[in-house]
Amino acid sequence: MGRYLVISSDTHAGPNSPVYRDYLDPKYRAAFDEELAERQALIDKRRESAEASPFVGDDEFKEEWFGVDDEGNSLHEIGLRGGWDAVTRDTELDNDGVAAEVVFPGPDAATGTMGAPFGAGFIPVATRDDDHLLAGARAYNRWAAELCAASPGRRAGLIVAPIVGDLDGAVAEIRRAHAEGLTGGIIIPPRWGDHESYTSYRYDPVWATCEELSLPVHCHSGPAPQEEYGEVPGWMSVYGYETIFYTARPLWFMLLTGVFERYPRLKMAVTEAGCYWVSDLLWRADMMAMREHGMRKMVGTRGTLTMLPSEYFDRNIKIGASNTRRRELGRRYEIGVDNIMWGNDFPHPEGTWPYTREFLKSRFWDIPVDETARILGLNHVDFYGFDVDLLQPIADRVGPTPEDLGQDDAVSVPKWAPFKEAGRPWLTGLEAGASLTDT
Amino acid sequence: MGRYLVISSDTHAGPNSPVYRDYLDPKYRAAFDEELAERQALIDKRRESAEASPFVGDDEFKEEWFGVDDEGNSLHEIGLRGGWDAVTRDTELDNDGVAAEVVFPGPDAATGTMGAPFGAGFIPVATRDDDHLLAGARAYNRWAAELCAASPGRRAGLIVAPIVGDLDGAVAEIRRAHAEGLTGGIIIPPRWGDHESYTSYRYDPVWATCEELSLPVHCHSGPAPQEEYGEVPGWMSVYGYETIFYTARPLWFMLLTGVFERYPRLKMAVTEAGCYWVSDLLWRADMMAMREHGMRKMVGTRGTLTMLPSEYFDRNIKIGASNTRRRELGRRYEIGVDNIMWGNDFPHPEGTWPYTREFLKSRFWDIPVDETARILGLNHVDFYGFDVDLLQPIADRVGPTPEDLGQDDAVSVPKWAPFKEAGRPWLTGLEAGASLTDT
Repeated sequence: MGRYLVISSDTHAGPNSPVYRDYLDPKYRAAFDEELAERQALIDKRRESAEASPFVGDDEFKEEWFGVDDEGNSLHEIGLRGGWDAVTRDTELDNDGVAAEVVFPGPDAATGTMGAPFGAGFIPVATRDDDHLLAGARAYNRWAAELCAASPGRRAGLIVAPIVGDLDGAVAEIRRAHAEGLTGGIIIPPRWGDHESYTSYRYDPVWATCEELSLPVHCHSGPAPQEEYGEVPGWMSVYGYETIFYTARPLWFMLLTGVFERYPRLKMAVTEAGCYWVSDLLWRADMMAMREHGMRKMVGTRGTLTMLPSEYFDRNIKIGASNTRRRELGRRYEIGVDNIMWGNDFPHPEGTWPYTREFLKSRFWDIPVDETARILGLNHVDFYGFDVDLLQPIADRVGPTPEDLGQDDAVSVPKWAPFKEAGRPWLTGLEAGASLTDT
Repeated sequence: MGRYLVISSDTHAGPNSPVYRDYLDPKYRAAFDEELAERQALIDKRRESAEASPFVGDDEFKEEWFGVDDEGNSLHEIGLRGGWDAVTRDTELDNDGVAAEVVFPGPDAATGTMGAPFGAGFIPVATRDDDHLLAGARAYNRWAAELCAASPGRRAGLIVAPIVGDLDGAVAEIRRAHAEGLTGGIIIPPRWGDHESYTSYRYDPVWATCEELSLPVHCHSGPAPQEEYGEVPGWMSVYGYETIFYTARPLWFMLLTGVFERYPRLKMAVTEAGCYWVSDLLWRADMMAMREHGMRKMVGTRGTLTMLPSEYFDRNIKIGASNTRRRELGRRYEIGVDNIMWGNDFPHPEGTWPYTREFLKSRFWDIPVDETARILGLNHVDFYGFDVDLLQPIADRVGPTPEDLGQDDAVSVPKWAPFKEAGRPWLTGLEAGASLTDT
């Protein structure tokens, strides 16, 4: 084993907002100019009142992220330019040990000045109407296709696809953007508002198109029903806890109502919502499908599924788990070692950039090498169709080694053997440590 | 160690619907007669069309639950009478090894003929308006006070308290019903509809009253936003998975926004929603409060909390975990051994009655005796103020022994020692088995 091929399942890119003007269909430019002016007024107002959005950090945080070091150099200024500049971006990926990336919109760490038009971000939500949102998506997609073309093979660019509104328009945009070079998949809104939810067969044309073009469907954090939280101290923690649920929600809506039965080659990923919840989802879903005692009286839990939910999961779904926690890695045999895709969330401050090497060491030091290789990159290769022949030379130059991560298979492999054997205890009937079966 | 004092944190009681007429304030009786007629028409229609509610079971299930044995005897008919008859009820508890119980409304296993008036069940949701719902709650509460008086000390009866509508009326009813003998706590609607959520200080008079009277606040399963699921095959599994989240949701709304900081002696329980999710809730909530890396940029996650969320949990909250799964017991040191209260869900078919002894053996065979004693009954004593001197003689007559459960501390205690020591790994920094810290 040489150097790991590390791929980030979760990065963000996009230009400063005014740049989008040139990528918008002309009829939407006047409206975009208005939106830009409104947004700038909001930013100015916040700056004047010293009342920043709670999502952009307090003074201590901003000092860390935007401040200067002892010698007066900006801490992250150059690196943050990688949000839109392809050459800088590749340098930052190199420095972080990352050979390739899956690119979402929204590079803006904490300033609010880089949003795509009309809400076409990594959580697409219309700021005007469905028509404008789709126009914004086209603008982002055109820009992203250029960024990806600048470093062939190193980026899987995602297509913003606001499917809950103008579905036919979104499907047409998926085909257009795919033809233009965005081959990484599509991003759908995790919440459907007043539209039909993702159990509805209305969305079948989207699933059929994505299956045909081999485009994984993505939901990215962090939506949540903030309107329910009220403006009381601590609401931010309610948001932080619930956004995981609301980001991942389309997954079980689709999984349990047979979308992957109808579209057996459709792929799906949930990104930057952790993966700790996956083991319990699969346990509960499998047990319901098998009509466990607590759900015996319920009719129709199995629906149209011919396999167990965990079997569809293994076949169709992966998790863009970003900065994997040790707590999550401890559950990897239940989640599925092949289903977890690490990511650095470049250039967001909640990710691991520019300290990925240190993070990887603190998280993976006792994980077997073959499993680390899958979680850090090989799973992404299979899912997104990256070209290993093209990427391995980059990895051989920048990737971390097992030694860098403090790994020793002579210790790690025996340590985990009972858990690997137990796998999913509710299916194997084997117990290991505190991971018990369900009987 | 003799016989376990077993208390069920989750049982259901109530008469056949027409009986409620006598317990209703006279001005609501005509409306109740109408509701009864409508309900009966629905039941008749379902019976004719052979299209039962998906919540009442298929033919195979109904044969199991309502059928006859080889000798022509009704399988559960006599026992089900315990839903409303105090003498039968005590006999069934005895047979199940249960010394005492925490009583919710809704004994109806699967027929739809025993609902309390105007939606005043264990998930209070108005079928007419807030005024009628409160009248229905008074009717149930009066009936329940009589049932509890029939077996002094053996039942903690809960007060149906629809606080989201007529708050002042609900507070008055809490005081009235408490004075009448319902001392087990209150049941609130887990969903708030168009009303303010439980982060709102609007509900402070409820919390203050419950703190004053030492009445734990309860949410009982299974609400869910069914209107979002659509009528597609498999929606029942979406419901089954999500009802856990939506039942428990008030807990983190209250916990994270400081209700237990403002009301340090207020108690709360979430009932029949399992407890598997508690360990991850506490982990996430604690990590956010400590501003872990992934939430560093967010402002105000700690809110007004002066302690960690898990510390409030240990002080103020317990889980009515009903039929505890082994998977859940495996996490008991993270959840807190003192925070789990087993229950048999009598007389619902998804519970353990009338097979509690077998269920307990299959779940607890390797759990240390002192921990079993707490989860099966001692935790309930502390939380609800049961009188052990009164109950122990019943337990000595009917309770199971450690031998009955196949337990041997010489094996169990060493088996779990590393996990007990690790406790909550995110706080202790200790790891055991696959339970890892968060660094």
